[in-house]
Amino acid sequence: MTTFKDLGEFGFIDRIARYGLARDDDVLCGIGDDCAVLRSDHGQVLLFTTDTMVEEVHFLSSASQPEDLGYKLLAVNVSDIAAMGGEPRHAVISVAIPPDLDVATMDRFYDGLYECAEQFGVSIAGGDTTRSPGPVALTLSLVGRMGSDRVCYRSGARPGDLIYVSGTLGDSAAGLELVLGRDVPLAAADREHFLRRHHRPEPRVALGRALAESGAVTAMIDLSDGVASDLRHICARSDVSAVIAGASLPLSPAYRAYCAAAEIDPLSLALTGGEDYELLFTVEADRADRLEALGGRDGLPPPTRIGRIEAGDPQVLLENAEGYLEQFDASGYDHFRPGRGGR
Amino acid sequence: MTTFKDLGEFGFIDRIARYGLARDDDVLCGIGDDCAVLRSDHGQVLLFTTDTMVEEVHFLSSASQPEDLGYKLLAVNVSDIAAMGGEPRHAVISVAIPPDLDVATMDRFYDGLYECAEQFGVSIAGGDTTRSPGPVALTLSLVGRMGSDRVCYRSGARPGDLIYVSGTLGDSAAGLELVLGRDVPLAAADREHFLRRHHRPEPRVALGRALAESGAVTAMIDLSDGVASDLRHICARSDVSAVIAGASLPLSPAYRAYCAAAEIDPLSLALTGGEDYELLFTVEADRADRLEALGGRDGLPPPTRIGRIEAGDPQVLLENAEGYLEQFDASGYDHFRPGRGGR
Repeated sequence: MTTFKDLGEFGFIDRIARYGLARDDDVLCGIGDDCAVLRSDHGQVLLFTTDTMVEEVHFLSSASQPEDLGYKLLAVNVSDIAAMGGEPRHAVISVAIPPDLDVATMDRFYDGLYECAEQFGVSIAGGDTTRSPGPVALTLSLVGRMGSDRVCYRSGARPGDLIYVSGTLGDSAAGLELVLGRDVPLAAADREHFLRRHHRPEPRVALGRALAESGAVTAMIDLSDGVASDLRHICARSDVSAVIAGASLPLSPAYRAYCAAAEIDPLSLALTGGEDYELLFTVEADRADRLEALGGRDGLPPPTRIGRIEAGDPQVLLENAEGYLEQFDASGYDHFRPGRGGR
Repeated sequence: MTTFKDLGEFGFIDRIARYGLARDDDVLCGIGDDCAVLRSDHGQVLLFTTDTMVEEVHFLSSASQPEDLGYKLLAVNVSDIAAMGGEPRHAVISVAIPPDLDVATMDRFYDGLYECAEQFGVSIAGGDTTRSPGPVALTLSLVGRMGSDRVCYRSGARPGDLIYVSGTLGDSAAGLELVLGRDVPLAAADREHFLRRHHRPEPRVALGRALAESGAVTAMIDLSDGVASDLRHICARSDVSAVIAGASLPLSPAYRAYCAAAEIDPLSLALTGGEDYELLFTVEADRADRLEALGGRDGLPPPTRIGRIEAGDPQVLLENAEGYLEQFDASGYDHFRPGRGGR
């Protein structure tokens, strides 16, 4: 017997893909990107995504506020729409909850959900409510829209493209460590900052739309699992290799202070800690100026250049200060190999 | 503390509705119908629905084949689209499963899911796979489409309209009794019939579309909870009363034989047993001919006239052979009142 544990999430997704998901001519992209992309009328596409949060897997009831859960469940779906460059529009939500759950808890959950919905112009258009004999399970499905000629897939990165990321990395991962009880001496404001980044991610809708409109982006993904893992998805779909310059990663001063106090490697956590919900994207080198000019305009977060795309087998390499390249995977620095020379 | 058990499903839905779900001009209908109805371009609407199945609540692993679960999860969502008169198009599926589940079980689940998808022209366009420390929880979200001027809401029934239902009632409820272990002497073919009706509901997409196109239908819903409960939804949304003639209910010969052998009231189970996934709809009396002419055409199941809409408080009354009216609710014949005279 092969179990789900043996196969892993991505093995399971590969297994499902054998059914031939995209036989329908209207499915421009099925499994394998942040959203399904479905042909609509008059040059528009429908973006369609779903995410589930399960108690004890994605959140601990003892350590999470229901408002934050509601906010985050929608925010992570909105982030999937942002990662294609689209506009989030309508959601349906399915909640499976134990019959003895306090209704006030669900009221607070919906308060957070609607706060996020209002912020991003999403309407909660329907749903399904069922009993669960086990943990709370919350599934939100979201549709969005955009012009079909502007969709930013994961598959368009080409050798020579530059790699950018929005915002700063690792703050959410630090927040998760605090949630899980890690005891690190911190200023109250910094602690609040990390928890907020973890509980209330800010999907980069405005930036994503501006990037898609710019026409300069060749591939895009949102950071849910961490740069190491998510950049690997771009590499796999685009059939290219990526080199990241460790020294260039955007890290907040608070995060650097946290890592110093906690005695952990800031690079490692920033690359492998998940749930930043920033945008990671690639840009043709000769259009980088146009891209960088977007930063700061209309309050958009400035993107930071962190590396480059190269020809080669799909993998992510880290370039250190001496120009050496190290290969690593999502669980950290797994394999090492001699540098191929920096530039 | 008020629990979900105290409030009940519909109480909870009312509670959510206070958030003002339909502030968005593009939401033509939010909570309260079979699907959310969202304005699209050029006279089209997007239909959006979601349904969850939880192990031990909606199915027993010991008594269900995974293929049937996959088929049914999509079929019940397709039925929601059919109930508006629409065309089902694209689905995303979220599965929360224990890590030690046999992958072969999920393979069989997907086999059934794709069988249904193929049958109804739905593409499975994406999804989310997560771990669950508890029961298997499966959520499918489906979008469909249709012309905005043809949507069959629950809210359009008017006094004088006639009430129709497709197919036969109660077969699925008999199937559920067999699944739950009720021991009734039955011909093998009949047993198979009931189990199939329960495990493999046939959403009435072609009929629903033909009904919507006919322009004769004033209100429509699919039968998930039983005529007693679902007709009440039409009454509540349309602010009318309904009278059903007990003798007119379409019951299969096999179902009548089952009820005789099991010594149960065929009327009661047919009205309150759920999961028929037939269409229940109302029609302007002077257009009934046009409607009845649809029956049998292009292989469409013939609709049966079962009652009429009257003015009055939202309720469902049952007219017996002597013309007496009995009020009942979803749990059976709850209240009795003297007849108001039948016709």
